[in-house]
Amino acid sequence: MVEAFDVVDLIHTKRDGGTLSTDQISWLIDAYTRGYVGDEQMAAMTMAIFIRGMQRDEIRDLTMAMIASGERLDFSGLAKKTTDKHSTGGVGDKITLPLAPLVAACGAAVPQLSGRGLGHTGGTLDKLESVPGWRALLSNDEMMTVLRDVGAVICAAGDGLAPADKKLYALRDVTGTVEAIPLIASSIMSKKIAEGTGSLVLDVKVGSGAFMKNLADARELASTMVGLGTDHGVRTVALLTDMSTPLGLTAGNALEVRESVEVLAGGGPADVVELTLALAREMLDAAGLPDADPARALKDGTAMDHWRRMIAAQGGDPDAQLPVAREQHVVTAEGTGVLTGLDAYAVGVAAWRLGAGRARKEDPVQAGAGIELHAKPGDHVTAGQPLMTLHTDTPDRFAYALESLGGAVTVAPAGTAFQAPPIVLDRIA
Amino acid sequence: MVEAFDVVDLIHTKRDGGTLSTDQISWLIDAYTRGYVGDEQMAAMTMAIFIRGMQRDEIRDLTMAMIASGERLDFSGLAKKTTDKHSTGGVGDKITLPLAPLVAACGAAVPQLSGRGLGHTGGTLDKLESVPGWRALLSNDEMMTVLRDVGAVICAAGDGLAPADKKLYALRDVTGTVEAIPLIASSIMSKKIAEGTGSLVLDVKVGSGAFMKNLADARELASTMVGLGTDHGVRTVALLTDMSTPLGLTAGNALEVRESVEVLAGGGPADVVELTLALAREMLDAAGLPDADPARALKDGTAMDHWRRMIAAQGGDPDAQLPVAREQHVVTAEGTGVLTGLDAYAVGVAAWRLGAGRARKEDPVQAGAGIELHAKPGDHVTAGQPLMTLHTDTPDRFAYALESLGGAVTVAPAGTAFQAPPIVLDRIA
Repeated sequence: MVEAFDVVDLIHTKRDGGTLSTDQISWLIDAYTRGYVGDEQMAAMTMAIFIRGMQRDEIRDLTMAMIASGERLDFSGLAKKTTDKHSTGGVGDKITLPLAPLVAACGAAVPQLSGRGLGHTGGTLDKLESVPGWRALLSNDEMMTVLRDVGAVICAAGDGLAPADKKLYALRDVTGTVEAIPLIASSIMSKKIAEGTGSLVLDVKVGSGAFMKNLADARELASTMVGLGTDHGVRTVALLTDMSTPLGLTAGNALEVRESVEVLAGGGPADVVELTLALAREMLDAAGLPDADPARALKDGTAMDHWRRMIAAQGGDPDAQLPVAREQHVVTAEGTGVLTGLDAYAVGVAAWRLGAGRARKEDPVQAGAGIELHAKPGDHVTAGQPLMTLHTDTPDRFAYALESLGGAVTVAPAGTAFQAPPIVLDRIA
Repeated sequence: MVEAFDVVDLIHTKRDGGTLSTDQISWLIDAYTRGYVGDEQMAAMTMAIFIRGMQRDEIRDLTMAMIASGERLDFSGLAKKTTDKHSTGGVGDKITLPLAPLVAACGAAVPQLSGRGLGHTGGTLDKLESVPGWRALLSNDEMMTVLRDVGAVICAAGDGLAPADKKLYALRDVTGTVEAIPLIASSIMSKKIAEGTGSLVLDVKVGSGAFMKNLADARELASTMVGLGTDHGVRTVALLTDMSTPLGLTAGNALEVRESVEVLAGGGPADVVELTLALAREMLDAAGLPDADPARALKDGTAMDHWRRMIAAQGGDPDAQLPVAREQHVVTAEGTGVLTGLDAYAVGVAAWRLGAGRARKEDPVQAGAGIELHAKPGDHVTAGQPLMTLHTDTPDRFAYALESLGGAVTVAPAGTAFQAPPIVLDRIA
């Protein structure tokens, strides 16, 4: 490999607050993909990027370099319009699971290339892998077959697609460099652009459980990504959605699959249903199907039918019993009144510590671990009633998980007025 | 291993400017030493430490943790007092080579545990390994035997001594996190305290070629280290010395050995001789031998005699031909006048690029690569006269090395008054 640049020089530049050139970024990503630049060097670079930031041009260059690191898919041969959705990750965010089959049931093709757990937010693939037999890894041909036959496929991005992003994503997860706008935006958009989807709906989470803690940061991330997508000819829309409290009533792997199946059966928590439908409408609109009726597809069983076919097409048994954790611990309410706060971040970290997430990229996750909520903000609670159930196969983790839940629950005197924030906070197109 | 802490939590703490506790630092270093915390995680942490800094207590804790990661040596059985010297590293800083045998010739015992190349400054072991047959790796027993028989030994710190520092030192070298006071101070002092020397003289370099670019930073580093040494019962003194221009007339591995032998033969460049004697006097004073006469030991051949015995005791042939690089390139003066600047950093980077240093910790160094200077600041130069000769086995590197030398040489009109800074700028005890 040509040593066009010295990686330590480049690290110094970013470490000291400088700007990297197009050529430098292109070389760095290529060298990292080939293994000439090591994980430890890229970890230092990403921490420097995290703290020092990146200019818009650097983010564009990073995205281009990651796309160029691998192949690009082409769905133009499909009879249907393709549309995809990406969430920046939240606690209890299982939306992809019901959404992909739902949108497919309404007539669009959904090539949903997903990831594994990143930080305290779960990964879609980790969740689906709790379904016995289900395989995340498909060849491009297999993916195309499932997409053509079922209309939706959720699988791991193949090794050929933005391999630089794949490496970097796994690295950031274990090196404390997840929540940075330049790295998040380029990671998501490189994968989505290389994937070749015709349109894209972004679900940018805002709140304690999200990477973006406030609306201003979320807007910046959303507009950065919408700009990157539009520049590359992908019709891109972003919804900013609330992540101050967990979405739905479960955070974990098998626990979230169970809840997703409830939604596909026409039930499920109201917030999960609302967000699933809002995103489905955006995707269908972007795919040129503005008249489709996703609410009906949930009620009439066609979404569930697509889910079952999608799971089965990837070796999963949609009727199999989902794994259950070996140990449970119930957390009860300390006071009586109105639950006004249930912090998403604290719940996410607790679920992660229980085994639903990983500390190192080689680590396995526990299929059954996680947290089940028995109350949500706005509910009346009585001292001693169960607020949540913690699940794990490794009960020595309970204390560590409970530590993160300290202060996570806020109960106000009975009768206190409380208005939960709307799920969809803003829309950026 | 007990997961007392989550490494990603600790990285977050430092990344966001927080302070790590004694227990957290102790756990982190132990976990890194055992391999439970990975290189990529430690690289992110060191970059966060680099940018965010460390409190005094954190530096002390880090030093203690690195000492505790391994064994401690004990020289109390020796008949002679032990004294050691450490340089923070500079361009052309070959002082250890003549100094150790010189101080031994004057009656003290010098257990000089040294390192390999770190950034653009060469490593003592890399230099000595250009002597045919010479071995850097000795067992503790072999080291003690050489120390007892010759009075001086220069060798690699064994794997048992501050292994955490050994890992971290190699990691910082390739991840752009070398020049940080907390990391430099704890690295040096953990090794020196674990090594068990009775007294220690620090040569803290100041200037473009050093990690510390200005006197204020150098003073902070020196006083941090003197404090750490004194706290642990090691009599510690620091000299702040000039590194705005390379020391002596060579930067490289075999090139610097050749120059060191010239000094031991009673010749050599004036600055190298002056600094060698200043450090020798401090070491002999610290070892309780204030009346020793190191200048005489250079002249009467006793220092050279100790050098030859020291090299031979570690398998080296003091009479062997030193390796010579396959290709040379001469840089000439562009103008006529007084040479007022010859930037140490530029020369160091150029030597590094020629192959004298390494880009990754697994890389070999070239024994013959480096730079020979034909003029020093204060000298009168004539347009077209040779200023320096570049040496390498890989001539495709010449252009890359020359790039770093752009602007490194300053020639003022003939007759311009120029006063080179003194070698020793300050002393901190």
